[in-house]
Amino acid sequence: MKVGIADTTFSRFDYFPVVTEVLLESKPGVSWVRYTVPGIKDLPVACKRLFAAGCEIVIACGMVGGADIDIQCAHEASLGIQAVQLSEGKHILEVFVHMREARSEKALAAICRDRASKHARNALMLLFDQEGMQKRAGTGRRQGKADKGPLKAD
Amino acid sequence: MKVGIADTTFSRFDYFPVVTEVLLESKPGVSWVRYTVPGIKDLPVACKRLFAAGCEIVIACGMVGGADIDIQCAHEASLGIQAVQLSEGKHILEVFVHMREARSEKALAAICRDRASKHARNALMLLFDQEGMQKRAGTGRRQGKADKGPLKAD
Amino acid sequence: MKVGIADTTFSRFDYFPVVTEVLLESKPGVSWVRYTVPGIKDLPVACKRLFAAGCEIVIACGMVGGADIDIQCAHEASLGIQAVQLSEGKHILEVFVHMREARSEKALAAICRDRASKHARNALMLLFDQEGMQKRAGTGRRQGKADKGPLKAD
Amino acid sequence: MKVGIADTTFSRFDYFPVVTEVLLESKPGVSWVRYTVPGIKDLPVACKRLFAAGCEIVIACGMVGGADIDIQCAHEASLGIQAVQLSEGKHILEVFVHMREARSEKALAAICRDRASKHARNALMLLFDQEGMQKRAGTGRRQGKADKGPLKAD
Amino acid sequence: MKVGIADTTFSRFDYFPVVTEVLLESKPGVSWVRYTVPGIKDLPVACKRLFAAGCEIVIACGMVGGADIDIQCAHEASLGIQAVQLSEGKHILEVFVHMREARSEKALAAICRDRASKHARNALMLLFDQEGMQKRAGTGRRQGKADKGPLKAD
Repeated sequence: MKVGIADTTFSRFDYFPVVTEVLLESKPGVSWVRYTVPGIKDLPVACKRLFAAGCEIVIACGMVGGADIDIQCAHEASLGIQAVQLSEGKHILEVFVHMREARSEKALAAICRDRASKHARNALMLLFDQEGMQKRAGTGRRQGKADKGPLKAD
Repeated sequence: MKVGIADTTFSRFDYFPVVTEVLLESKPGVSWVRYTVPGIKDLPVACKRLFAAGCEIVIACGMVGGADIDIQCAHEASLGIQAVQLSEGKHILEVFVHMREARSEKALAAICRDRASKHARNALMLLFDQEGMQKRAGTGRRQGKADKGPLKAD
Repeated sequence: MKVGIADTTFSRFDYFPVVTEVLLESKPGVSWVRYTVPGIKDLPVACKRLFAAGCEIVIACGMVGGADIDIQCAHEASLGIQAVQLSEGKHILEVFVHMREARSEKALAAICRDRASKHARNALMLLFDQEGMQKRAGTGRRQGKADKGPLKAD
Repeated sequence: MKVGIADTTFSRFDYFPVVTEVLLESKPGVSWVRYTVPGIKDLPVACKRLFAAGCEIVIACGMVGGADIDIQCAHEASLGIQAVQLSEGKHILEVFVHMREARSEKALAAICRDRASKHARNALMLLFDQEGMQKRAGTGRRQGKADKGPLKAD
Repeated sequence: MKVGIADTTFSRFDYFPVVTEVLLESKPGVSWVRYTVPGIKDLPVACKRLFAAGCEIVIACGMVGGADIDIQCAHEASLGIQAVQLSEGKHILEVFVHMREARSEKALAAICRDRASKHARNALMLLFDQEGMQKRAGTGRRQGKADKGPLKAD
């Protein structure tokens, strides 16, 4: 069972060691293939190639600049990623962090680390533990920040 | 006749019991398949897999965060859901609730419950009662809030 | 020659009698198939099914709510409708009326009626009278309001 | 070698005589097929049908209203036109004029005429003169207004 | 191994000599095919044709005007470029420069030159040096301006 990991040279954070550490710890038998591209708009075809190389799921890691045009680029990348998922019938988990999400570089790196490690776990749950996933449905899970929990409706 | 139910761990409301209660009450013979994913952008491929598992219709349940970027994510998810519907020729009913729709958690949960139960009924009408659906055409039905009724044009 | 008519229970105006009245008056031999769905985002797959049922053209009737998110929903519906048209190579005429187009319910109903009846005529012209259509090219025709006429450039 | 010309009854300018005059003058052997539809969102499938009728390139002429929703319609039309081009592997040149581009009807008509005639010439260059096209690369050509010329970087 | 170079007559900068200079210097054996079109919305089908002509990767060079509608055009072009990449399973590197990115023509030309040359190198790395690409992952590379470097998180 191979996991694809796509990442970019644009990103200011190296997600790869975070993702692989989770994979190694949580599911020792899993292997991976890495594919690095310049920026987020190059990720969809990278994912497509990782599926062609036999991956069952892909974790697509990118960083989104702080300008309005960068938000549009992320939108284009995400639509491409939707198209790849639907043509393959397989999941791609987006680990996209926006420069706008934090002011300090330190806080931004913490978001990157948290989002990448949680989505690495999500990838494994999607592959191996749908039952565990269903137990978490509706519980307000977040990646990159603390969980919100279920709505307090009483 | 199987109904697919896709939902997320991001959501702070568990739509599943609401949907299945309506299905059980309204159409005892109907069965369902559930598939839980991390967030709304993972729903389109989840729907695709539910159709592959033999579902005739899917109810896609998600919650949309309150930031602008969340609205864009919902847009991407909805476009993916459009693509799945068209490739399958089958309906997917979106039960998406936006955090922006209400201020209190209690009010939000009420919207979730109302939208999920009404769309569960809509799913059954689409499958079994096109005549009943046509009688409702142009009558201003709403899910998640009270019906508006037809325009008063006189 | 069958015309498809897709409409919604969300709409506060019942377009169906307006459309069929025009069809009956203008082209007695034409028949139609109706398909009603909950909302505008359900229209694209409804159109797809109407083509599968042998329709040569579809008139897709919907109403768009007044909030920003409703505009986005209309956009998603329209992109789905584009996709269906291109996969079928056949026209779908959108009779979409936005709640924002008028303040009073009476004025809104008048727009609905005008747009539906003119697009029903357009559907017939697309099917049977390309020559008549070409005579109207560049003449500023409007549906839902008065025609604008050609630019006064002299 | 056939050129397709798609246009609309919504437009307040009749592009057809402008386009055909250029075709006749510049390339006497070229023939054309015209297809008129109600509005810009009907143009993509019109283009598809023109390719099915044997056209090698299509000039899609439309006018875009001045409201925000009209900009969205133009966006949907353009995305449909992208899809047709890619499925056919052939060019569609968009002659879209926005009502917002000029205040007076006379100025608007001048833009329409200029854009249509220049894109008619572009269509012929794409078909017959890639070498000439390459000579113009990077020279700041505009349709609908005066050329800008290359950047002054010294 | 052929590299496709698509460019436009709309652009006010001629990217072609910059790109080919890098290709010649860095990888003498590489050849290229050029295809020039009027504007950025014509680039996706140009890329498609370059792949049909045997190119393994395409560098798509365009300039984006300064008005809001131009941003929308770039978005449409980028979505088309996504679609081509996914249907071919091959990369297209976008060298798009926005008029808004700089005030002076000289500064704009410098951005064009920098972005084009760096993406020409990226194209070669994607073709021949995935290992080198992976070494750069997460290092904050930029095209058109100075690199940002990795986040300082300590």
